[in-house]
Formats: sequence, C-alpha cells, structure tokens
Amino acid sequence: MADREIDALFRAFSGSFRWAGVEHRPYKEEGSAPFKAISRQVLFDAPEQGCELRYFEMDADGYSTLERHEHMHAVMILRGRGHCLLGGTVRDVKQFDLVTIPAWTLHQFRATQGEPMGFLCMVNSERDRPQLPDAAEVEALRRDPVVAAFLDGKPG
Amino acid sequence: MADREIDALFRAFSGSFRWAGVEHRPYKEEGSAPFKAISRQVLFDAPEQGCELRYFEMDADGYSTLERHEHMHAVMILRGRGHCLLGGTVRDVKQFDLVTIPAWTLHQFRATQGEPMGFLCMVNSERDRPQLPDAAEVEALRRDPVVAAFLDGKPG
Repeated sequence: MADREIDALFRAFSGSFRWAGVEHRPYKEEGSAPFKAISRQVLFDAPEQGCELRYFEMDADGYSTLERHEHMHAVMILRGRGHCLLGGTVRDVKQFDLVTIPAWTLHQFRATQGEPMGFLCMVNSERDRPQLPDAAEVEALRRDPVVAAFLDGKPG
Repeated sequence: MADREIDALFRAFSGSFRWAGVEHRPYKEEGSAPFKAISRQVLFDAPEQGCELRYFEMDADGYSTLERHEHMHAVMILRGRGHCLLGGTVRDVKQFDLVTIPAWTLHQFRATQGEPMGFLCMVNSERDRPQLPDAAEVEALRRDPVVAAFLDGKPG
C-alpha cells in the first residue's frame, strides 16, 4: 500500500475528542430545534460493514433529540457523564457505560453535570427516520416527576 | 418495560475495563497459540444490527493473532497504548486512536508499553474465518527490521 493509503487507515485521536481526518459536524440550531449544543463525527461508515460508528458530543447542558425509530442504537459513553432517558426511565450514565436502545423506544441523552458528555453510537447504515413524540406523549411522560425534572435539565 | 428489562439495557462500566452483565472470556493458550494474554468481551451483538462490538484486551506484552480475513475491522483503542502491524507497516497507537483494517490485510496488535492495551472492534456478525500467514510470508515480513522488531515484541 502507498503511504497515503496507510495514513488513511490510522486516524489519531487529537485531544478534545476530535480525530485526524474526521469531519466535525455541529448541528445547526434553527428555530425550535429539538436538540441543543450537539455535534456529530462519523468514525467508521464502510458500506461492507452495513453499520456505522458515530461519536456524538453535547456541551454542558446540551441534549440530543427526544426521538424513537425502528432501528436500534448500541451506545457507549466515551466522555464525561450525564443522564439518559429510555422509555419512561431516567438513569445517570458515565464514561464507558453501555446503553442499548431497542426499537421504537423514546430516548434522549443530556449533559447534566456541567461538563461535556460524548458517546459512541453503532447503528445500521440503512435505517428509518426518527420520529418525534407528539405533545400529548410528552405531557404523559412529564407526569412522572423524575422524567419531568430530566426534561427540564435538572435530574435528581 | 419491567425493571429487569430496563436493567439489561443499562450496563455499567465497573472499572478495570469490565462491564456489568458482560462475560469476560480469556483466550486459552494451549501449545503453540498464535496469541498471548488476550481476552474478549462482546459488548453488543444484536442480530438486527448485523454487526457486533467487541472489546479485546491484552496484558502487558500480550498480542493478538497475526491474521487476515475478508471481513474488515473498525477499531478504536480504548485503553492504554501499544503498537499495531497493518500490512507491512508498524505504527504506535494510543487511547482513542482509530484503525481501519481492510479486507485481506495482515494485522496484529501488541501491548508493547509495559501496560495493558484494549480496543473496541466493530465487525460483521457473519464473517469468514481468519487465515494465518505461512512461514514463508512471516519470513518475508521479517526482512523489514521494523517489522521484525515488532514481531519480537520490541518495536523502536
């Protein structure tokens, strides 16, 4: 292999959770965006694997979209700590914890601890589009005070 | 979801690179095993993803099998540092570095720095069996003094 080809196979971690040769994509927050202060880096997406490995990171107080879909997510927290809502359950999560997000389960990650939180997410390359809960569903979720506190960014 | 089902979706990192509810599988070294002091933990292997995420760890001076196969590997170093041979190239690797191992490319990881080295490996669930290089191939590889030093566990 040529040197340039070899170089493309080794992508160094360059500190601050960025990688050489990996595009850093902040999500644009326009109008009533359902997420806050989150960025995406696609680490692996070779078609022959049929899966991708992405790294998402939220700034302190940032959060991912509250959503559900048919495809599942396999998640490892890679940086920091925070909280995760899965179905109607809120749990605190920390570096290297594993979270399995089954099909059609509402989920959201929040960087609740005054520090960035980042996670790896393994996902099928071909997947359905996420669906957002409607207002009635969110209202139903909020009847649980633990979930309401989470959604307000102030988990117990 | 029942509490027990929810518990199974959150698997905590329990220190020392073990996870709650994840079986730790040391490889048995019998006779002339082509690997040394390496263990495996399967973190995710849901059939609907078609991919698995595994964590391999070598003790200090341990190494993975020198092998090749049709399926590719998507690797992130998760613990420590060491060296990697890919084709005829040796590189040092450290925590969170990414390594892409293309089809049919000989590869080996070695924990060369007096500390354990561990890595995540994303791989297709259905995959071909690894092939070992024959003696002539290893001899050819060793003609490069950098590769020979790596194979002897003493990279520069």
